[in-house]
Amino acid sequence: MQFNTQDTIVALATPMGVGAIAVIRLSGQDALVIANTIFKGKNLEKQASHTLHFGTIIDGDVLIDEVLLSLFVAPQSYTKQNVVEISCHGSNYIIETIIKLCIKNGARAAKPGEFTLRAFLNGGLDLSQAEAVADLIASGSKSSHQLALQQMRGGFSNELKNLREQLVYFASMIELELDFGEEDVEFANRDQLKKLILNISKVIARLIHSFEMGNVLKNGVPVAIVGKPNVGKSTLLNVFLNEERAIVSEIAGTTRDTIEDEITLSGVRFRFIDTAGIRQTTDVIEAKGVERTFEKIKQAAVVLYLFDPRETPEAELLQITADLKQTNPNNSKLLLVVNKADDETVNASLNLFANANDFIFISAKEKTNIDILQDALIKAASINSINTDEVIVSNIRHLEALQKTETALNSVLYGIDNPVTSDFLVTDIKQALYFIGEITGEITTDDLLETIFSKFCIGK
Amino acid sequence: MQFNTQDTIVALATPMGVGAIAVIRLSGQDALVIANTIFKGKNLEKQASHTLHFGTIIDGDVLIDEVLLSLFVAPQSYTKQNVVEISCHGSNYIIETIIKLCIKNGARAAKPGEFTLRAFLNGGLDLSQAEAVADLIASGSKSSHQLALQQMRGGFSNELKNLREQLVYFASMIELELDFGEEDVEFANRDQLKKLILNISKVIARLIHSFEMGNVLKNGVPVAIVGKPNVGKSTLLNVFLNEERAIVSEIAGTTRDTIEDEITLSGVRFRFIDTAGIRQTTDVIEAKGVERTFEKIKQAAVVLYLFDPRETPEAELLQITADLKQTNPNNSKLLLVVNKADDETVNASLNLFANANDFIFISAKEKTNIDILQDALIKAASINSINTDEVIVSNIRHLEALQKTETALNSVLYGIDNPVTSDFLVTDIKQALYFIGEITGEITTDDLLETIFSKFCIGK
Repeated sequence: MQFNTQDTIVALATPMGVGAIAVIRLSGQDALVIANTIFKGKNLEKQASHTLHFGTIIDGDVLIDEVLLSLFVAPQSYTKQNVVEISCHGSNYIIETIIKLCIKNGARAAKPGEFTLRAFLNGGLDLSQAEAVADLIASGSKSSHQLALQQMRGGFSNELKNLREQLVYFASMIELELDFGEEDVEFANRDQLKKLILNISKVIARLIHSFEMGNVLKNGVPVAIVGKPNVGKSTLLNVFLNEERAIVSEIAGTTRDTIEDEITLSGVRFRFIDTAGIRQTTDVIEAKGVERTFEKIKQAAVVLYLFDPRETPEAELLQITADLKQTNPNNSKLLLVVNKADDETVNASLNLFANANDFIFISAKEKTNIDILQDALIKAASINSINTDEVIVSNIRHLEALQKTETALNSVLYGIDNPVTSDFLVTDIKQALYFIGEITGEITTDDLLETIFSKFCIGK
Repeated sequence: MQFNTQDTIVALATPMGVGAIAVIRLSGQDALVIANTIFKGKNLEKQASHTLHFGTIIDGDVLIDEVLLSLFVAPQSYTKQNVVEISCHGSNYIIETIIKLCIKNGARAAKPGEFTLRAFLNGGLDLSQAEAVADLIASGSKSSHQLALQQMRGGFSNELKNLREQLVYFASMIELELDFGEEDVEFANRDQLKKLILNISKVIARLIHSFEMGNVLKNGVPVAIVGKPNVGKSTLLNVFLNEERAIVSEIAGTTRDTIEDEITLSGVRFRFIDTAGIRQTTDVIEAKGVERTFEKIKQAAVVLYLFDPRETPEAELLQITADLKQTNPNNSKLLLVVNKADDETVNASLNLFANANDFIFISAKEKTNIDILQDALIKAASINSINTDEVIVSNIRHLEALQKTETALNSVLYGIDNPVTSDFLVTDIKQALYFIGEITGEITTDDLLETIFSKFCIGK
């Protein structure tokens, strides 16, 4: 293992920017000694873990700030090392000065994710839990948050660990057979093994299948709003965005940067795909634009077709809905939404269109029936609520490892049903064990760890 | 007093944005009760002050996050009330959810500066110290930081308190005289009073005078870089900015938003004033531009005249420097800087210009002699280092109160030297006491407090 966990690392743990306070984190065997050198107050090395101490940070004779120190004595900390958190005033000048001072006194600037890496290397978290920490910080909706929290709490790991233990048992039994060489004994009951493998395959298949929902929960449900130019696509999107902003701004001081094309409805994140208008055309260039729109529609989980029935004859509507369904027959749900729906258009629609009862009538401008449309969107996304008891995979690295596990398990099954020697069988089982171990971190390489932790923010 | 300090307030104390952790602060008599309701872990009401507790935040059955709680039991806290700081994962979703949960359980969203307002109202800080907290957070350079820190530590208040006490003594003595009505007794020795008033006036005058430097330290030294078009003004500014960026980026993760026209040299902030080029012209429109440039130069504490001696005859240089000096005879120092200074131009300058020995020869492009120019800038700004023993005023509100104090003191002096009755004298002394009290907060109005604290960030 190339990672040094013996030295003491330091980093800002709170976001950059002006705030009331900032927290600087030190972790390592010298954390208390370094903090003690720059702290005027009690002798930190004589204090109990999980205590708070008021005092000043000094650089020789120069006063830097009045601070509160949080003390965590190894192994009672996130990293299982000595940890000191310095809560100072939230000025960039003070933050920089204190970090420089820590470095001058023997600390090293932490790399992204290095605190969590240490927590993993010291056994505080397994790898999928560590990855969930980054997801938790990035989570912007109730569903992605619950997903990450469940993974961080070990839901995912526990399910895999249990499977892995059963497989390890069989692998050792078959290896025992190999020790007996030519004697043709069978310690591992092949029927029981087959039953276990089928059982595991079922669980793995379910986890693989859960990724579809996990990915949507984590990254947002892709929705395409499609319609002719000027039918009110932008107005509708703005109505959604404003509703969200209103909710967010209820909590003073916590307004956030809104990503213009993402909204959260009932805790589920929806990601809107920008599309050009579509209509039947003979113009070559315009046809290209329509083609691109259909390409984008393929990525959508929900297609919201917005139209004005007075400008869309039934034949055209039928043609377009048929086109939309054909574009994405498997994944997309289609919502037919009538915008600018005053009484007149509603009545006209009910008379003119055979399927008008399936229409959702809204007015984006007047903000009428937006709640009905939101309910329809959530229903179309097939995510009513997340079952927190069920493990959902949302990490593409995990998905790949699970798929490799599945392949290895299929080889094991083939080996059981066919005249394959025990050493081949044990190799296939070990392959499966390897890929499961990659998820929880029982099997790691330095490259893998670097890839995972480099995606973290500094200070975590 | 209209301010309610009995309820419990909640706010995010760290900056918005994604970071490893975020800190949510609760203050009020119910802080522990509210935290206990949403916290699964130890019973917080039974824990000692200044302790840290790991557990989870829950909303009924729903898990929100794993957190660390910092406990401060009244009066051992910043606000002198019960305070709980919730250190959670730095996701906007989690922050919003926890703040909403606190509000649901009886807390109220804090107004800007409300924590510090409570600290002031409960006697933890006086008013000038409270104001210094906001300055400290906003401080972006060593000098403005030291200034704010000194004020927060009470340097400013202590000096004023001492003066005020002496004045209060004399006011009470003169009031005693009034009680004796017609008896013509004199409890307050007028010679001693005059000596005290003169003494106080001297201190007040020094504090007023210190504002000039205080303002510069707090807001940056205004510098005008002046010169003909294409003489290299932008290149020079970029050289300065890059030097600063290099220093800042040494500390991984603490890069800050650079304000394009401000730099910090040796801990002093310089604020560059953008000017159009100046040259003698007969064109009316261009002459207007030059006029505006001279207007801006009036605001500068230092004028840096950048020129190429090969394109600037001595007569022209003399005329321009005379113009510059005349524009701002009191405040500005003038630095004559030769840019693109290879050996040839240096030699030519020494031969052609009588005052060439005063020139600073640099090459912005080659980055030569930039350190010499920086030293000259700092010297011209008359700020070598801040004497931390000496109290410096940097707040315009304080300046105004000091100026009013000075006027009142002059009236007292007039009253001593002229046949003025004791009741007039005591009124003038009380005026002076009032204005000094406005600075430290012994005299406040709700309006004043609202104005001061509304400038704070939320969470402080």
